[in-house]
Amino acid sequence: MNEALRLYGYWRSSAAYRVRIALNLKGLTYESVPVHLLRDGGEQHSDGYRQLNPQELVPVLLHGSRVLRQSLAIIEYLDETWPDPPLLPATARDRARVRGIAQLIACDIHPLNNLRVLQFFEQTWNVPQPERELWVRRWIQEGFTALERLLQESPATGEFCEGDTPTLADCCLVPQVYNARRFGVDLEPFPTIRRIQAVCEALPAFEAARPERQPDAPSRQ
Amino acid sequence: MNEALRLYGYWRSSAAYRVRIALNLKGLTYESVPVHLLRDGGEQHSDGYRQLNPQELVPVLLHGSRVLRQSLAIIEYLDETWPDPPLLPATARDRARVRGIAQLIACDIHPLNNLRVLQFFEQTWNVPQPERELWVRRWIQEGFTALERLLQESPATGEFCEGDTPTLADCCLVPQVYNARRFGVDLEPFPTIRRIQAVCEALPAFEAARPERQPDAPSRQ
Repeated sequence: MNEALRLYGYWRSSAAYRVRIALNLKGLTYESVPVHLLRDGGEQHSDGYRQLNPQELVPVLLHGSRVLRQSLAIIEYLDETWPDPPLLPATARDRARVRGIAQLIACDIHPLNNLRVLQFFEQTWNVPQPERELWVRRWIQEGFTALERLLQESPATGEFCEGDTPTLADCCLVPQVYNARRFGVDLEPFPTIRRIQAVCEALPAFEAARPERQPDAPSRQ
Repeated sequence: MNEALRLYGYWRSSAAYRVRIALNLKGLTYESVPVHLLRDGGEQHSDGYRQLNPQELVPVLLHGSRVLRQSLAIIEYLDETWPDPPLLPATARDRARVRGIAQLIACDIHPLNNLRVLQFFEQTWNVPQPERELWVRRWIQEGFTALERLLQESPATGEFCEGDTPTLADCCLVPQVYNARRFGVDLEPFPTIRRIQAVCEALPAFEAARPERQPDAPSRQ
């Protein structure tokens, strides 16, 4: 339990951002190891990093000698290893709802808009930048339209995505809203998402996890 | 517990295929409700189905009146509700590995190759079919290259992805290999994936879940 935690991430990676929020909500201290996704063709493609993660993606969390990959799997590991405060609700039914929201974002929005996909469009298909940005916005809008409806219609939605404490779902929502803003998505049609986002942003655990607050953010260097 | 299970799926959807495997491994009886993803512009876009899932994607599992969405969340729900046989290992560390493998497939391979993405390329960007198929193969090859290495290098890999019983990871692997074959991916470079696939295919739970065995498969109609 007392072994060191070391997070390999990138300030603007929304998958790393999710894990930072979870670590902060748990009150865990960790060392941040920046992996620059653009410098020198991408440090995630270096031999050293590939040893840690053959997928050549961030984040990776080291817990002592344990190598943990995939942001949602990492957050579930944190929740099982340090149960307090819980990031998943108490019943199977409620946990399914929280995981479903997290996966709506982490499976059906984010991977489509990841750096490696946008680089493929630019370098292999020569898709112009405005078209690439339309692509990004399309999947965020489609996913948020469904998510807004799920949140609005369910009595389980509270101050946060599920009830009145932050869960795995909020760990995914906030970085996805960050990406939406970055790519100019109009958030006006998503009032519940905006409301929950505002509640989260007011908490220190979310504030400290923001991309701009990370040691490798450009404004900090 | 004794409430009816009803799976909304499509014979060739690999996300529905995962859930079918899990239901069969648990020995659960369920009603199969076909949602034809191509007929009449896609039955998943109908008003009735959108009530069940605003994402307009399959699968959805009904358990009595509970509506469960997202294949990995559904499988975790099944595992928590009917713990025997377990589809996740006993320790947090091992569970993280299994979830990490499942998410490598379910987040970083499959969503890129989903029907709605291929339809977007065809209808909006006019990408020719050979280019679309190259796209599909690219992400499967990239994901499988990483997965093969993770499986080969870990002493936790056994007859199956984790140890000697099937887990959530195998529920994801087998449908992804089905997709790989369908799109002509050369599996020669992935001997561990092929070996585990063969072990799974020999089990009745996996056999009964195969797309060709479903009531809505064309050869059965």
